[in-house]
Amino acid sequence: MINYPFGKRVNSSPITAIKKNKNPVINSANRGMSFETDINFSNDYYAQKHIALITKRPTPINVVKVDYTRGARITDAYFSMQSTTDYNGVYHGRYIDFEAKSSHSKTSFPLNNITPHQFEHLKEVFFQGGIAFFLIEFTKLNEVYFLDARFVIDWHENQQKKSIPLTKIKENGRLIKQGLRPRIDYLPTIIEYYSL
Amino acid sequence: MINYPFGKRVNSSPITAIKKNKNPVINSANRGMSFETDINFSNDYYAQKHIALITKRPTPINVVKVDYTRGARITDAYFSMQSTTDYNGVYHGRYIDFEAKSSHSKTSFPLNNITPHQFEHLKEVFFQGGIAFFLIEFTKLNEVYFLDARFVIDWHENQQKKSIPLTKIKENGRLIKQGLRPRIDYLPTIIEYYSL
Repeated sequence: MINYPFGKRVNSSPITAIKKNKNPVINSANRGMSFETDINFSNDYYAQKHIALITKRPTPINVVKVDYTRGARITDAYFSMQSTTDYNGVYHGRYIDFEAKSSHSKTSFPLNNITPHQFEHLKEVFFQGGIAFFLIEFTKLNEVYFLDARFVIDWHENQQKKSIPLTKIKENGRLIKQGLRPRIDYLPTIIEYYSL
Repeated sequence: MINYPFGKRVNSSPITAIKKNKNPVINSANRGMSFETDINFSNDYYAQKHIALITKRPTPINVVKVDYTRGARITDAYFSMQSTTDYNGVYHGRYIDFEAKSSHSKTSFPLNNITPHQFEHLKEVFFQGGIAFFLIEFTKLNEVYFLDARFVIDWHENQQKKSIPLTKIKENGRLIKQGLRPRIDYLPTIIEYYSL
């Protein structure tokens, strides 16, 4: 287990933890989860090395019932949708914001699991002068691509198709190097692409 | 109810919702919660007016048990500590990060509920060129102060005292104007203080 730079152990999302317990077999569902874990480890690496500070927003949960007799134990709750993106942070004073998504297709990235709130959030990030992008994992190809969020927003608004072909992603995005530490070394691409 | 700029209703924290149901009487505990709600409304106002994009991180919850027969209903979970601050976002491309705290003292701001992780997080924000500060509500005085996080970190590391006297906060911070919309208009202070 890699330690968080400040002594805290990496907090994988509650969903990850559950999925891992329930189903240790590698299938396409928890491959998506391990992509999240890989990005979390990469962010921990960047923080440890003081390269960038990028954190994952906790999974939003709506709490329905709490048992105060058991020290505020939650007895009824449900997962809710993130209305923002999953990750944000800072590099050289600049605001960075991104969403990590997995595609189980070999040829395209479907946009149907990006919510309208997330599109609006990403547009607002640009309006405020921030940097916003997607990291897209193609699980069956074992490839991860960077794609500026403007391209995704434009495609969503101007194309009839509900997915972006991999060929377009290759043309407009960048292939991210995978390695041991960090697993998903996306930061050099960001620095180069946005001239940071 | 004020609508979120992108059509989403304001998500008060799950704790707020519970406390509100359980105890509608205004006491010092849920005054702290309404401070959070006020800041959320102020951030919604800034987002609606496209002035800044600052969001609250969801309350981290550790999920222990999920009932999948009821559509992934969480049946056992507990609140965990935020290892970062509660708020972050972007203004003119710059990364902004802050923590909102309430003090029930009339004369000082106790530092004992700022975790070591939060201090480390704030230091790292500065290291990365970001802006980091505290908004401190004095519940009994109905006053809200801005205080740069560097001052709080320095005080924490170099003073024997476990709280910052209000006199020092007045000397080194700024009183924040309160109004109707936004309730806690902290952004002009940030812009002026950091020359943004």
